[in-house]
Amino acid sequence: MEAKAVVLQNFNQPLVIKTFSVPVLKGGEVLVKVEAAGICGSDVHMWEGRDPRTRLPMILGHEGVGKIVELRGEKKDIYGTSLKIGDKILWNRSITCGQCYYCKVKRQPFLCPNRWVYGIHTTCSEPPYLTGNYAEYLLLVKETDLFKIETGRNLETFVPASCSGATAAHAFDLSGMEYGDSVLVQGVGPLGIFAVAFARSQGASSIIAIGGTEERLKMAGYFGATHCFSRHPLSLKERSEAVMELTHGRGVDVAFEMAGEPDALKECISLARPGGSCVTAGFGEPHGSVDLDCFHDLNRKNLRLQGIWTSDVKHTHMALQLILSRLDDFQKLVTHRFSLDQANEAIRVMKNKEAVKAVLLPHG
Amino acid sequence: MEAKAVVLQNFNQPLVIKTFSVPVLKGGEVLVKVEAAGICGSDVHMWEGRDPRTRLPMILGHEGVGKIVELRGEKKDIYGTSLKIGDKILWNRSITCGQCYYCKVKRQPFLCPNRWVYGIHTTCSEPPYLTGNYAEYLLLVKETDLFKIETGRNLETFVPASCSGATAAHAFDLSGMEYGDSVLVQGVGPLGIFAVAFARSQGASSIIAIGGTEERLKMAGYFGATHCFSRHPLSLKERSEAVMELTHGRGVDVAFEMAGEPDALKECISLARPGGSCVTAGFGEPHGSVDLDCFHDLNRKNLRLQGIWTSDVKHTHMALQLILSRLDDFQKLVTHRFSLDQANEAIRVMKNKEAVKAVLLPHG
Amino acid sequence: MEAKAVVLQNFNQPLVIKTFSVPVLKGGEVLVKVEAAGICGSDVHMWEGRDPRTRLPMILGHEGVGKIVELRGEKKDIYGTSLKIGDKILWNRSITCGQCYYCKVKRQPFLCPNRWVYGIHTTCSEPPYLTGNYAEYLLLVKETDLFKIETGRNLETFVPASCSGATAAHAFDLSGMEYGDSVLVQGVGPLGIFAVAFARSQGASSIIAIGGTEERLKMAGYFGATHCFSRHPLSLKERSEAVMELTHGRGVDVAFEMAGEPDALKECISLARPGGSCVTAGFGEPHGSVDLDCFHDLNRKNLRLQGIWTSDVKHTHMALQLILSRLDDFQKLVTHRFSLDQANEAIRVMKNKEAVKAVLLPHG
Amino acid sequence: MEAKAVVLQNFNQPLVIKTFSVPVLKGGEVLVKVEAAGICGSDVHMWEGRDPRTRLPMILGHEGVGKIVELRGEKKDIYGTSLKIGDKILWNRSITCGQCYYCKVKRQPFLCPNRWVYGIHTTCSEPPYLTGNYAEYLLLVKETDLFKIETGRNLETFVPASCSGATAAHAFDLSGMEYGDSVLVQGVGPLGIFAVAFARSQGASSIIAIGGTEERLKMAGYFGATHCFSRHPLSLKERSEAVMELTHGRGVDVAFEMAGEPDALKECISLARPGGSCVTAGFGEPHGSVDLDCFHDLNRKNLRLQGIWTSDVKHTHMALQLILSRLDDFQKLVTHRFSLDQANEAIRVMKNKEAVKAVLLPHG
Repeated sequence: MEAKAVVLQNFNQPLVIKTFSVPVLKGGEVLVKVEAAGICGSDVHMWEGRDPRTRLPMILGHEGVGKIVELRGEKKDIYGTSLKIGDKILWNRSITCGQCYYCKVKRQPFLCPNRWVYGIHTTCSEPPYLTGNYAEYLLLVKETDLFKIETGRNLETFVPASCSGATAAHAFDLSGMEYGDSVLVQGVGPLGIFAVAFARSQGASSIIAIGGTEERLKMAGYFGATHCFSRHPLSLKERSEAVMELTHGRGVDVAFEMAGEPDALKECISLARPGGSCVTAGFGEPHGSVDLDCFHDLNRKNLRLQGIWTSDVKHTHMALQLILSRLDDFQKLVTHRFSLDQANEAIRVMKNKEAVKAVLLPHG
Repeated sequence: MEAKAVVLQNFNQPLVIKTFSVPVLKGGEVLVKVEAAGICGSDVHMWEGRDPRTRLPMILGHEGVGKIVELRGEKKDIYGTSLKIGDKILWNRSITCGQCYYCKVKRQPFLCPNRWVYGIHTTCSEPPYLTGNYAEYLLLVKETDLFKIETGRNLETFVPASCSGATAAHAFDLSGMEYGDSVLVQGVGPLGIFAVAFARSQGASSIIAIGGTEERLKMAGYFGATHCFSRHPLSLKERSEAVMELTHGRGVDVAFEMAGEPDALKECISLARPGGSCVTAGFGEPHGSVDLDCFHDLNRKNLRLQGIWTSDVKHTHMALQLILSRLDDFQKLVTHRFSLDQANEAIRVMKNKEAVKAVLLPHG
Repeated sequence: MEAKAVVLQNFNQPLVIKTFSVPVLKGGEVLVKVEAAGICGSDVHMWEGRDPRTRLPMILGHEGVGKIVELRGEKKDIYGTSLKIGDKILWNRSITCGQCYYCKVKRQPFLCPNRWVYGIHTTCSEPPYLTGNYAEYLLLVKETDLFKIETGRNLETFVPASCSGATAAHAFDLSGMEYGDSVLVQGVGPLGIFAVAFARSQGASSIIAIGGTEERLKMAGYFGATHCFSRHPLSLKERSEAVMELTHGRGVDVAFEMAGEPDALKECISLARPGGSCVTAGFGEPHGSVDLDCFHDLNRKNLRLQGIWTSDVKHTHMALQLILSRLDDFQKLVTHRFSLDQANEAIRVMKNKEAVKAVLLPHG
Repeated sequence: MEAKAVVLQNFNQPLVIKTFSVPVLKGGEVLVKVEAAGICGSDVHMWEGRDPRTRLPMILGHEGVGKIVELRGEKKDIYGTSLKIGDKILWNRSITCGQCYYCKVKRQPFLCPNRWVYGIHTTCSEPPYLTGNYAEYLLLVKETDLFKIETGRNLETFVPASCSGATAAHAFDLSGMEYGDSVLVQGVGPLGIFAVAFARSQGASSIIAIGGTEERLKMAGYFGATHCFSRHPLSLKERSEAVMELTHGRGVDVAFEMAGEPDALKECISLARPGGSCVTAGFGEPHGSVDLDCFHDLNRKNLRLQGIWTSDVKHTHMALQLILSRLDDFQKLVTHRFSLDQANEAIRVMKNKEAVKAVLLPHG
């Protein structure tokens, strides 16, 4: 059997479609027909050569959802359900070693030094070749964590669970947010939209979204933001006054930086209340620094500032459950669809932030 | 009855001894004969006029321990023990309102906007006048939280529980330190020494202390530091290499910034492992800033950076229990003793860091 | 000024309406016009003489909401909002000492040995007399924690926040429930309905309600239960099989016992998964025992079994925020309304479980 | 190469020494020369045929420590240290699947349904045969979690880390114990002694041990118990009064049931304070039940009752660090030593509770 896949051969050059032989499965492996693959912001960075983990040539794509075409041996999903050919599945995008200090003692597998991600650390010049989601078929190694999807819905809706949804889940997991808290979300791309949705689904009393583009802010409102402030008509000072008025002059209980901009992080820190927390998950690659006043920003404020790096299976589970609870809403998150042939256009749309979420549909 | 007290009348001018009439007690109040009062680093800052909370004239001193001379009504200590004249007591240095969002909803009374501290927010020109510890007698208002001290030991040993000990306890309370963790303590003044002692008493597997003065580092070793690095012979790079070697190349699980210096905080952040935490408690007043790389220092590192502001009754309890578990050791923490007449000399010794801990003994 | 109130003079005898002089306020006190008072299951127990805390004669009623008629001194609510005459308020039903091991060290004020509750520990034969909610006016002492209600809605909707809502909030606070968990709620009286609503508002993936009366189960479904099982058509075994099928054979992540029946608690324990938790909040008074197999029910199961006693201000805040997020729904929780004159009928309706929630409207 | 091992062929019959061929290693496997194997209380239960997991014939022994004789491929220990022939190692006694709800979503691998333990779930009639610690050599499969032991000390001291030490660590991990808490330990076998040692190493203010045999109580005192009560001279009522007097009439903050007796669990529950917690880890097999009053024991008491089942790598790490911090003390825990030939005598001594900890030394 053969499979077409979108290959990154040279940075900043058009992606190319290549044909691969589907390898013979080993014990525990699963071959998946990719129904939809997500275009992530980091794919753009990889295409531009800004991610040192990239090993050329490679098949891009770490977000995906599909159907089982073949499987070797008995397989169960993470919930204990037996899997068979034809089942629809989502999978955790990364593989971890399960035997290091992070995996076993600290229960932080997302920091495992042996962690690798489909479509990020892989190259298509080595077996099993088909290791990126921008392809007709994907080979899942034995250690991959699987989630069977029981609903009859459009599978593409689940694509963002595996990256931005899971990362937002991780941010909430470490945020210390309590029921009834006021929440600020800085940035309203997919990561920010998920943060808004999680805040609403965990009982935030008010959810203030700050963003730059009108369409995305509208989406934030649709997902549950109680107040949406645009960076353009409103100055930093006006936004600050508005937030303080909404929070009895204290600032929000928890602020989420989901924009990947130093100014956004500064604003989050300044708008978090004393004793509150500020979670930053937006920086997937090096992009500037913030200057913090030790006394005012940290000590006197008793602030908790928490950085977030990627996610693990727990978080993919959380994101999947969130999507399942609001299927109609999340279907609207996917604003653009492309065939494999249009992969270069898909990258362009994501780069220009024309889309909220764009997906490739390898089988049309 | 009259009481002598040390009064701060003008910033940067010698403290002056004045005589006050002891006021008549109201219901719930306690009059205490001050057996020992601590000289805190913040007293020096207040004397220099660097603390905006200072209202002249005032009696300095927020750390103290003493004997009950008079009490109005039935009183119990925080453990439920009935109190009577002659009992030795420690008290929590601050009073909080018990009716605000911080006190009641968030259980963070140390952030109560109505919080005030004996010898910090008080002036001796208003009743009840005797509200600082640099005095023969101190009046404790009804809301003061009391701890009866049952041991026959020298009371001065307990003085540091109420400020540096309690603040270090707060730092541990929010550090997320787990049994068997590796710990770094930056700064070996009273705050740092308490951090070393708490790390040892909570099961740290290794305790690395970094400081500037040989005598204080020796004290850190005495209290349980497994490795002591001096800033002077060792460069930043050498210290970093030594810490990495001790921690399998990862960095420490928890780093405590107890020095109040931006460089110390930077070093703590750089030496904390991915997924670890860095707690900063050293900045009692504005003193510089740190520049953090959003990706490397926070997001990629999945770091928790926690600021600490003062403490509450829970933490004074922790510090008291720590001292009770090592009475002989903590007696050695007090290196200098002065009479009320020598208060100016006591401030000087503290300012020059000649002492680890200095106390006033108002009754000789 | 005078105020009518419903007095319990003798156990099991009709409640009697008496007229009281409204006392002159002292500093910090607030006089409230009671707009609605809740009839709680414990009121029935008190009327029957089964609660040893009852001191006759007394005005029943620990749940209430009203308008400020008079206040002495400046007052703020728990959020920091200044209060004035005419403001609508909810208040925390209990007063705690703020100076004991539970209040200050363990941050568990609900266990304060000096805790007292309006309409439970009070008698109307001592000042300030008007201390129960079954009355036209209620005097709130200085230490009472207040919540200003900003909405223009019918105040009666907020009545259950102060008791069953807050107790359910406490149960969730200690449940360890995580986003996406499966939840079981045993008992669908007000406590159970609140549990269902909290489970939904905190992201439970499935919410299984078990109850005895059809109307209340329907209400549970309305508030978010995904599956409702009646004890009558379904046997214990059938319910168990149904729950196991819904949870991949493991049992639920968290089970809430909200019925106050030993059999309900046993069922909760047996239906919680290994490593899950079972929270019991239904037993407001002595009512039987459960026999637990040490190995199977506790050790092998790695079960967390958490008892819940009353609540504190944090929990009233959570319940208030929950109601605010679903005003239309919670308005439906109040199924019966009575005047003060009809207090005996109100007790009867509650005793017979004819109502989900019944309230007194002292001013019609 | 050949290896002698102690085989359980028939329940309640003498153990027999057999000789096995050492299998050829596969990738990732490690062959260990067993330096010391622990005799655990559950070994006695297995020998008696009371453990349904037992598959005859088998080599007993799930606790062990040894030296690497051979290894296939590059191996690192859990801390990241590279391993080589001759290194001394401890290993986690169980293997988990790493792909189920417990392993990946709930981070509770000790509940993994696919979990198996060396010397418990294994039989010596299937490859790799040498899977119990009562043997000269043991084969560790690829997934085994290893801990390199750097000290030059007697290896036998580390044996109890892998079972009773790790289980006690798990109990502390879920106990919610805070610095300065009062602690009760019921039962002073190896599990109870570890509990005493952990309580001391995590800052308990008082540690009350209750036991039956004088020698073990003395050992508890040696490891840090501040008060030791014997069940024999003291009645239940006398013990209760003594504990209440030590805890201001409240009961202890945390009680640990480490005896595996229903009466011990009842006593722990009755002596835990309101709002405190009671952890039960003593029941490794079915052994009776407790009758709990729903109101008095659970709800009114706001008690947390936590069951504990086995342990995982995090807990072995904790136990190892505890032993490393008190090597001289833990060496005294091992009271009896036997050769392989004396395995039947070792079982007898353990059954009669003559030993605190007994070990086999397969190489003399």
